[in-house]
Amino acid sequence: MLERIRIVLIGTSHPGNIGATARAMHNMGLADLALVAPRSESRSAEAISRASGADKILHHAPVYDNLESAVADCRLVVGASARSRTLPWPMITPRALGERLPAELADADARVALVFGREDTGLTNAELQRCHAHVHIPTNPDYSSLNLAAAVQVLTYECRLAWLDHQPGGPAPEADTESATQRDAEADQAAASAEHEAVFGIAWDHPPASHADLERYFEHLERTLITLKFHDPDKPRQLMARLRRLYMRARPDQMEINILRGILSATEKQAARNDQG
Amino acid sequence: MLERIRIVLIGTSHPGNIGATARAMHNMGLADLALVAPRSESRSAEAISRASGADKILHHAPVYDNLESAVADCRLVVGASARSRTLPWPMITPRALGERLPAELADADARVALVFGREDTGLTNAELQRCHAHVHIPTNPDYSSLNLAAAVQVLTYECRLAWLDHQPGGPAPEADTESATQRDAEADQAAASAEHEAVFGIAWDHPPASHADLERYFEHLERTLITLKFHDPDKPRQLMARLRRLYMRARPDQMEINILRGILSATEKQAARNDQG
Repeated sequence: MLERIRIVLIGTSHPGNIGATARAMHNMGLADLALVAPRSESRSAEAISRASGADKILHHAPVYDNLESAVADCRLVVGASARSRTLPWPMITPRALGERLPAELADADARVALVFGREDTGLTNAELQRCHAHVHIPTNPDYSSLNLAAAVQVLTYECRLAWLDHQPGGPAPEADTESATQRDAEADQAAASAEHEAVFGIAWDHPPASHADLERYFEHLERTLITLKFHDPDKPRQLMARLRRLYMRARPDQMEINILRGILSATEKQAARNDQG
Repeated sequence: MLERIRIVLIGTSHPGNIGATARAMHNMGLADLALVAPRSESRSAEAISRASGADKILHHAPVYDNLESAVADCRLVVGASARSRTLPWPMITPRALGERLPAELADADARVALVFGREDTGLTNAELQRCHAHVHIPTNPDYSSLNLAAAVQVLTYECRLAWLDHQPGGPAPEADTESATQRDAEADQAAASAEHEAVFGIAWDHPPASHADLERYFEHLERTLITLKFHDPDKPRQLMARLRRLYMRARPDQMEINILRGILSATEKQAARNDQG
């Protein structure tokens, strides 16, 4: 499970923070680091020194131009954020995030991304709006700016606790033989059906849409709304942000995204007939 | 409560770790740092730089010769440790430690010390045996040496969570002044948005759509989809059921429903132009 949690650092300016992030990840059993437009050298002497033996993670970390490409294959994207800004967004605590992960990652293909912004300015609104939810580490309101690697440490610690809680041998002390065997026997079945339960409260019929599917939908939606003259990109107000927030909150599955895109195509066909006529 | 938790660093050799410890403490609302026989200058430029604004804690940190004098006034002393060595010792998890703190610190005179050892060799057996209990942060067994300040960050985070859980207002909100004022002002709206808080973990900007609003939306949606020839009520398959499920899961607010209905109206207008043409 832990190997399918990706830590994404955007625009990091201090190589020491990249190194310390690798160390924090390795300490907690994570290995998938992605860098988006770093403003520092991720394999510098300082990064490697602060990685303190975890530099393999640095050497394997791909570099991307933008957030979308770094998380395209992820089903859940969570951005680390201070309090929500202009537009409130689904917000979870680090603990709630951890508790959600075993179900989110039950399917062997599922990946989750935890996204961390720049040391000075954090994540942009556009980046925050590409996340399904935001996670806020509770801090002293008088002094809330956590060091980047410290924030990674706290969230990866919660990831590890959640993983440990989910082990068949488990930390739960009431491991009598009967229930342990039973737990083993039911493990596979549980994993399969648990996948969506945490998200939707029920066993689901289709897997969740990937980040890339969702982004294609939002592009299609925006194009259609422009065609309908419902949306003016020069005066966006918060229309697309509100629609993004609505649909990301719902965590559409693949079938639902197909239906929504089908509706957009049918709408465009109407509009095209008008243009011809 | 948090001000009566003392962080004790023994024999720290990197000034950056002392600075980063001060930052981690201040972020989590702690202020009482004690240094025992430090092997580095706690007020060096590097320490102050890594403290990143929390250097007041460095300037106030007393220096002691030994552990006993640093924790003399503490009722509970907990040592951060890898797994117990020669002699098994009471061992608690960071979470269990946090959960214990409110009771330990209920008396206004009570103080608790969390003790952290040297970067290279940790705590000596003599020091470990001066602790009531040892706390072990779960780590990757292949790579278990946490950075000192990262270990402080994890334990102080658990302290803060325990403190937040113990606040009269309850566990959820971190009671900063801004959100407290906001909360007062929005008291009336609270009932309406309480429902949303349960779902999203934050106060929302618009109240949730009523059941009637939602039903009007679904009627409008179905009518539009028939117009688009995307939906045939005689062969409904599960189209409307799937769309209902999607939107109801998202718990749309009133503004979002207005937007969605606006899109339907714009779509219908296109279709009407076709019928005329």
